[in-house]
Amino acid sequence: MADGPTGRSWWGWGNESEQLGDEECAALGALLPGLREHPVPVPDIRRLDLPTPRLAPPGALAELVSADPALRAAHTYGKAFRDVVRVLAGEMAAAPDLVALPRREADVVDLLDWASRENVAVVPFGGGSSVVGGVEYREGDHAGVLSLDLTRLDRVLEVDRESRAARIQAGAFGPALEAQLRPHGYTLRHFPQSFEFSTLGGWLATRAGGHYATGHTHIDDFVESMRVVAPSGVHESWRLPGSGAGPSPDRLFLGSEGALGVITEAWLRVQERPAHKASASVLFDDFPAALRAVRTLAQSGLNPANCRLLDPGEAMLGGAGDGSSSVLVLGFESAGQPVDALLEQALDLVRGHGGRVRTGGGAGGRPAADRGDGSAARPAADPAGAWRSAFLRMPYLRDAMTRMGAVVETFETALTWDRAPELIEAVRTGLGRAVEEITGRPGILNCRLTHVYPDGCAPYFTVIAAGRVGAQRAMWDEIKAAAGEILVRHRATITHHHAVGRDHRTWYDRQRPELFADVLRSAKSSLDPAGILNPGVLVD
Amino acid sequence: MADGPTGRSWWGWGNESEQLGDEECAALGALLPGLREHPVPVPDIRRLDLPTPRLAPPGALAELVSADPALRAAHTYGKAFRDVVRVLAGEMAAAPDLVALPRREADVVDLLDWASRENVAVVPFGGGSSVVGGVEYREGDHAGVLSLDLTRLDRVLEVDRESRAARIQAGAFGPALEAQLRPHGYTLRHFPQSFEFSTLGGWLATRAGGHYATGHTHIDDFVESMRVVAPSGVHESWRLPGSGAGPSPDRLFLGSEGALGVITEAWLRVQERPAHKASASVLFDDFPAALRAVRTLAQSGLNPANCRLLDPGEAMLGGAGDGSSSVLVLGFESAGQPVDALLEQALDLVRGHGGRVRTGGGAGGRPAADRGDGSAARPAADPAGAWRSAFLRMPYLRDAMTRMGAVVETFETALTWDRAPELIEAVRTGLGRAVEEITGRPGILNCRLTHVYPDGCAPYFTVIAAGRVGAQRAMWDEIKAAAGEILVRHRATITHHHAVGRDHRTWYDRQRPELFADVLRSAKSSLDPAGILNPGVLVD
Repeated sequence: MADGPTGRSWWGWGNESEQLGDEECAALGALLPGLREHPVPVPDIRRLDLPTPRLAPPGALAELVSADPALRAAHTYGKAFRDVVRVLAGEMAAAPDLVALPRREADVVDLLDWASRENVAVVPFGGGSSVVGGVEYREGDHAGVLSLDLTRLDRVLEVDRESRAARIQAGAFGPALEAQLRPHGYTLRHFPQSFEFSTLGGWLATRAGGHYATGHTHIDDFVESMRVVAPSGVHESWRLPGSGAGPSPDRLFLGSEGALGVITEAWLRVQERPAHKASASVLFDDFPAALRAVRTLAQSGLNPANCRLLDPGEAMLGGAGDGSSSVLVLGFESAGQPVDALLEQALDLVRGHGGRVRTGGGAGGRPAADRGDGSAARPAADPAGAWRSAFLRMPYLRDAMTRMGAVVETFETALTWDRAPELIEAVRTGLGRAVEEITGRPGILNCRLTHVYPDGCAPYFTVIAAGRVGAQRAMWDEIKAAAGEILVRHRATITHHHAVGRDHRTWYDRQRPELFADVLRSAKSSLDPAGILNPGVLVD
Repeated sequence: MADGPTGRSWWGWGNESEQLGDEECAALGALLPGLREHPVPVPDIRRLDLPTPRLAPPGALAELVSADPALRAAHTYGKAFRDVVRVLAGEMAAAPDLVALPRREADVVDLLDWASRENVAVVPFGGGSSVVGGVEYREGDHAGVLSLDLTRLDRVLEVDRESRAARIQAGAFGPALEAQLRPHGYTLRHFPQSFEFSTLGGWLATRAGGHYATGHTHIDDFVESMRVVAPSGVHESWRLPGSGAGPSPDRLFLGSEGALGVITEAWLRVQERPAHKASASVLFDDFPAALRAVRTLAQSGLNPANCRLLDPGEAMLGGAGDGSSSVLVLGFESAGQPVDALLEQALDLVRGHGGRVRTGGGAGGRPAADRGDGSAARPAADPAGAWRSAFLRMPYLRDAMTRMGAVVETFETALTWDRAPELIEAVRTGLGRAVEEITGRPGILNCRLTHVYPDGCAPYFTVIAAGRVGAQRAMWDEIKAAAGEILVRHRATITHHHAVGRDHRTWYDRQRPELFADVLRSAKSSLDPAGILNPGVLVD
């Protein structure tokens, strides 16, 4: 963070300058009955009550670490609702003893060696944008906690123009990585919602899902090879476009969430920048019909780059609709070929399911700042770009609502088409009832599809309810538990792209095949014999 | 095998009826100087010298196993050149003691329980088409060897039309599986060269590569979920179109080659049958220019279904050329949209690299029998279809040449584009020299690209040299070693789709990251504590 992008919010999402002011918070809060009149104040970072650091690494390592209270505070939690609530309440007892800022991979090796010897828990930290408790130490049996911030490893080290691939350090944030690829005419084209505030290493460790709806979505598919530092040694796989030599070594570390090793760099497939774009939005009166239209589209082979279905409430929340219709935001992109004909084919197809193509103008929302993902260059009439601007604004609104006493939860999943309508309905009714029981009032519950596959989709749910300062965390925990139970009951994954972290462990343990849990435990013992890496994550 | 397709060759590739007769063998052998005048005879399966079985499973298990000598003989080896040579020499000491033919998954559980108790090695067996020693026991410290033939588990159990997915038992051969999907209008569309003679379980266990050049090629990408029986229990993953919940459980078993568990069934993504097809062949005077053309095509986003580049010798061998030019066989397919315009775009692109589109007629080769993959339905003027027919005939020619005393080796790899020209040249010169040293004469050494990716390609090499009956196996081992060394030196994978088995272990051990080897050993201990599953494969 010290050398990383400045102006970040230490307590909430993103950039401090984009957080809502007190009056904006109050105005927003007035839209939901039952909230406070004024937002709770954000604590003064200079007056936090942090525990005294228990660690002092020897010799050269001392230069890599910092006990600066502001830095420790900013490395205490991720950015889940639960995290923001605790920061606002001044609960900082979980702060790491030290934050390490390695300058090179060898520093990571040395830090892990020391930590293994001294029983120091190491929590790998990229952008710190985890919304699942991925970067927060919760155990109690280590001599101390070191937050291992990788953001000084932020370079594109090599570009192979023949193979269209780049070797990139794990600590590079999205915009910095794209800025270094741009002079070569390339893009990684991986744009998760957290793009500005998360790093390549974080994406790899959590199997991040990009912005694109079809085709290669998860970062997994872009990986040629990886370097990973584990306490037991350094892993490096060969750069290969494809291989059939045994189980994929990299697939073990993709999704390992810092519990099996620290990813330091990777060779990734990059792409030429798209030169052709076309998008449209389509209205549906009937959500089940919209679901069928999207399924048909996902199975058509047309492969839209963007294919987000918003239910009426979600469309209204994102400024893409008036609450009466479901909205499908559809976009095509290509570096090589015009895509207008593809968009027309797609529109013909969804019209057959009752879709009405919206004419004249965008999906609403304010224009995006230049985030390095090309979104700002889009004309206002581009529905996909406009919706994306609103989408990127969402987490700031969440933080404002949190300060007003609301309970806000977003959770996501994926499952096959045959079970999707039933699951969505079960969440609407079952979780809707639970929210009312837990908070004493009905809440807002919206759904969108973030990604579609030929065989299924990834539904994403937003819950907003009036809570009570002091009870927000407990209410959120109960809502989270109710949501997790519904997902597990339908055998829908506990996460499509938010990762497991600590907040999803209970349900992950039920989803994960028991034999694979045994394998993960064995792998953990082999790679991290002292059990120092991100304790509590994936396995015990 | 007992209940499986009949008419199979027990000693060589494929169907007995398609093996060349003695006179055809002699005519073929006359094309290569230095071979015998007449083929060595195929041993009489009724007169083989098999060791006495050492095993007798108790009770109900006895009904699942057979000690029939013909069955044991057919389960002794795979179908590598090395295997055929040994069968022709009557070397059958490695025959399994028993062959088990389970009728249901519970039988597999019972057999593994018994084998774990009694220290019986279990070699999972699908079609037995391994060309890497994948189904042959070579260790010595077990009480006996059981070949576990899965081919009675051969049903498509369920089709989910909404999600376009099917639950299929692991022992289904390619044609049987396609025949069961056809009434639903679906195809798995996974056509490895061994399609007729290999099973779904074999494909999954070896990360098989399909016939298609781009897009989803490896079977890995079609898997929604799997069931795997390990000695320590039964693994079942959830059916998910995508997930970010920890490292992928299934990716551990994909490529595990029977060493970590026995795959019994899987849910797979299926597709609608292609309705639109177009193909062409393109000639190049210059192989490096052809490589550049194919690279440009692979990075164009056009995604041809077929994109095989044959060097002049390989084109001649397959009947697709006269030996003066390299030939690119190009094909497009789609279930939904016409593909002629795509083919035209692709042809424009390769013309820019000196490609000359061949007019009027096919790539040569005789028409294919109906193999269940749609190849027979193609008109003779279809270059992709015609080349495929010749391609499917190759292994029979190999067996004929083997009987004539030749040494025949095919090996394949994959690497990024930046290193591909150098590797191909290194194989041509380095291995060419080695072949001459080993056999005393120059051999034939051809190259084709079987698969292309935006970031690299999969070169496939064919070596044919005059050997000497009695020395063929030793010569082949030396050629294999020379090839493996060249691949490892260039950090090209030891296999793109043939798997590791026992024949590639030496080089796999050098390719596989050491930390991942530790993880595999841990996983093996956890899943197969008695060490009975396919001993010698992947780890010791």
